Amino acid sequence: MEEREKAPAALAGLHEDLAFRFGEDFPTVCLDQGADTLARIASRGSGRKFTDRPVDPDLVHLLLGVAFSSPTKSDLQQRDVVIVDDPKLRFELHDIIRHRWLDTAPVLLVVCGNNRRQRQLHAWRQKQFANDHLDAFFNASVDAAILLANLVVAAEAVGLGACPLSQIRNDAARASRLLGLPDHVFPVAALALGWPAETPEITTRLPLAVTVHRNRFDDDEARALIEAYDRRRAQIQPYARQRDEAEYGTADFYGWSEEKARHYSKPERADFGRFIRDKGFDLT
Amino acid sequence: MEEREKAPAALAGLHEDLAFRFGEDFPTVCLDQGADTLARIASRGSGRKFTDRPVDPDLVHLLLGVAFSSPTKSDLQQRDVVIVDDPKLRFELHDIIRHRWLDTAPVLLVVCGNNRRQRQLHAWRQKQFANDHLDAFFNASVDAAILLANLVVAAEAVGLGACPLSQIRNDAARASRLLGLPDHVFPVAALALGWPAETPEITTRLPLAVTVHRNRFDDDEARALIEAYDRRRAQIQPYARQRDEAEYGTADFYGWSEEKARHYSKPERADFGRFIRDKGFDLT
Repeated sequence: MEEREKAPAALAGLHEDLAFRFGEDFPTVCLDQGADTLARIASRGSGRKFTDRPVDPDLVHLLLGVAFSSPTKSDLQQRDVVIVDDPKLRFELHDIIRHRWLDTAPVLLVVCGNNRRQRQLHAWRQKQFANDHLDAFFNASVDAAILLANLVVAAEAVGLGACPLSQIRNDAARASRLLGLPDHVFPVAALALGWPAETPEITTRLPLAVTVHRNRFDDDEARALIEAYDRRRAQIQPYARQRDEAEYGTADFYGWSEEKARHYSKPERADFGRFIRDKGFDLT
Repeated sequence: MEEREKAPAALAGLHEDLAFRFGEDFPTVCLDQGADTLARIASRGSGRKFTDRPVDPDLVHLLLGVAFSSPTKSDLQQRDVVIVDDPKLRFELHDIIRHRWLDTAPVLLVVCGNNRRQRQLHAWRQKQFANDHLDAFFNASVDAAILLANLVVAAEAVGLGACPLSQIRNDAARASRLLGLPDHVFPVAALALGWPAETPEITTRLPLAVTVHRNRFDDDEARALIEAYDRRRAQIQPYARQRDEAEYGTADFYGWSEEKARHYSKPERADFGRFIRDKGFDLT
């Protein structure tokens, strides 16, 4: 009942935030519940500035309980979390991730895919593991990503700031050694948590006309829509600087497309496949 | 303020549900906000029975806006959703997924990884795409999984029932043909939504002592803990029947380990790797 009364206020913020993010108006829908949750996700951004207020380890434990309650493919539970609170270990992981703000994050977690446990079950129950192919790696990756997403939602719901860090995979082999990850266990992302010192920015997103399709995938209009997105974004959220100017020069107009094309014109994590195969995965 | 007052009630349910799910007591933590969101995720289960009340397409659009607001790796936005409302197409996808209850689900969505757009940006911006390796497939998969997870959270927050369906990948090539997915776009999971006709069961989960590690991965105690989990689960959530009894016989004790070992003793989606490579991905 209380939520029903609260809904209109939360909904107004939700619609405003979605309009800003996607550059389109969303239809008004009457909600009995959940408007707060929707508004919180719609307004989220990754937090990178934290106060020095510590995060209660009991709260982290509670959030992990919530996150591990999230869906898991075929009930296989192929994901693990490593809580990193040893200062020396954190220092070494920061050296892989290379974000200076990370030093001030009270909590660092590493979310891992785990296909080792499934294989152990087969050994213990004396059954052949007949799924040593891409699906094994894929399912553990997706399981870990679902956990990560729910951990972010749960942390932000209680007021924490959260920042997922895929850079832990920039040297996955070293991260794996540091964390003692055995075969068939691999890092998917790190996650920094802390009480936020500022409200994160809402990053604009591609309009749903680009990313949502009806019955049949259709991106005939995508280029025009993405170019319009580039322009809208440059107007309201311009990039502070252009990437690789020495190589690519200074563009008159620098939008999301140009930034992303420059970004992935350099190899990143080209050794990730080898790392995963070294972990014992068969990717055929 | 209202949420602060509400928190104790939501928290009581949250702790009860987590204790049931994990078989352990969670510490009491004082929360200023978000208790409702946490309680909802902690008590969730996949909904498979729906009323015939239709789901407003505007509500689906709103939920998609919320879900596409979720984190995306390096702002690359490598995920798409196909809304399937054409009866003939649904019928054909149901034939892949093979869950009879799906016929009564008001909404069917397919969440896809999309690495095509990124490659298009490179062509349009005349920059080399230097990341044609496992990471490209992995990032799009994780991006799609994060979207899926947030879509489930958002849908359940407003009171919908949700059931992710990885079975869409049981014949990924056929699903892809039916949905017109081009190169570098692939289904990750389908998602059924509807107004729930029953409260879903809370599925028990491995204790956090198995899945959460501190500084270093450690599963020395895992076997004993998993066997205890098997026993607890068999007591409170026994399997209705044993899998592949003709081949494996009837076990005196049939727990989660035995179920999962039997399940993956049969090949599933062994052609998924070929499908992904046929989509143009280089998995090296």
